[in-house]
Amino acid sequence: MSEYLFNESLISDDIQKELPDGYKLRPLAKDDFNKGVIQCLEQLSVTGEITEENFIERFEKMKIVGGYYIIVIESDEKKVVAVGTLFVEMKFIRGCGKAGHIEDIVVHDSQRGKNFGKRIIEQLKDIGKKVECYKIILDCNEKNVPFYRKCGLETKDLQMTYYYDKETKNQN
Amino acid sequence: MSEYLFNESLISDDIQKELPDGYKLRPLAKDDFNKGVIQCLEQLSVTGEITEENFIERFEKMKIVGGYYIIVIESDEKKVVAVGTLFVEMKFIRGCGKAGHIEDIVVHDSQRGKNFGKRIIEQLKDIGKKVECYKIILDCNEKNVPFYRKCGLETKDLQMTYYYDKETKNQN
Repeated sequence: MSEYLFNESLISDDIQKELPDGYKLRPLAKDDFNKGVIQCLEQLSVTGEITEENFIERFEKMKIVGGYYIIVIESDEKKVVAVGTLFVEMKFIRGCGKAGHIEDIVVHDSQRGKNFGKRIIEQLKDIGKKVECYKIILDCNEKNVPFYRKCGLETKDLQMTYYYDKETKNQN
Repeated sequence: MSEYLFNESLISDDIQKELPDGYKLRPLAKDDFNKGVIQCLEQLSVTGEITEENFIERFEKMKIVGGYYIIVIESDEKKVVAVGTLFVEMKFIRGCGKAGHIEDIVVHDSQRGKNFGKRIIEQLKDIGKKVECYKIILDCNEKNVPFYRKCGLETKDLQMTYYYDKETKNQN
């Protein structure tokens, strides 16, 4: 079995059961580079040139630092078909509390209509609770607000950005 | 001299020079608990009961993990009068890039009108560039949009939140 980014016990059986047969929800694994995780992320944003070595190096750094909960859904064809990230920020406010940031949610466009986006968010919310975040937050395009509302989130503030390379600001 | 959260060389002399005499911009220090940093953060959100021991424990964890750039402005009365955080998320997208999240910006209400908010943001943008973030992002209330526009940021998406304890959702 490949090495996982975090302890598999954080994955909920109840959410796993909601997936169609043949699909598995699990932590990101060290060999997911060979299962198309980058091709999946390409549908979200610019990935640039990432070698397997780059991938493993970043995976290992995230694992050492901790607080990175990246989950994937794998198909029975051993392909990563959905990805989502929760990463946990330590704060001083809220009694030295923790905030969970949901980032880089993507479902491969060949796999729409299977509620994978919803399962990913449910699982990340569940992990956030287990690791004792007091809140989770995310930024999304206005057109995705109804989807996240269905997932139980509410609109609050406005996101503002500054891209060091202005020409790339239309991507995530 | 007290221990800093990160290397002081990341603080810009040019931004320091813009402060009124007697004020110093610097990394968060291990003894800032005794300089009123929590009282400053209280003006932003619920801090809860935080002891000096809690503060130091969290400070040390942030320092070990890395990626936390919390800066303060200290007055000549040895009080922390402004605080801001940049924390850096490692990603796979953007060639295993890094995104900087600006969080928990507060200027003590006794110190308004001195452009401290602007200096804090300038400094965090500058650190983000030095540590090679491809973007910085933040979430803010609509009324603060003009301020952040002046700091060079642009509105992009909507923030959505989920508070595990619904009763506390009106705070950060």
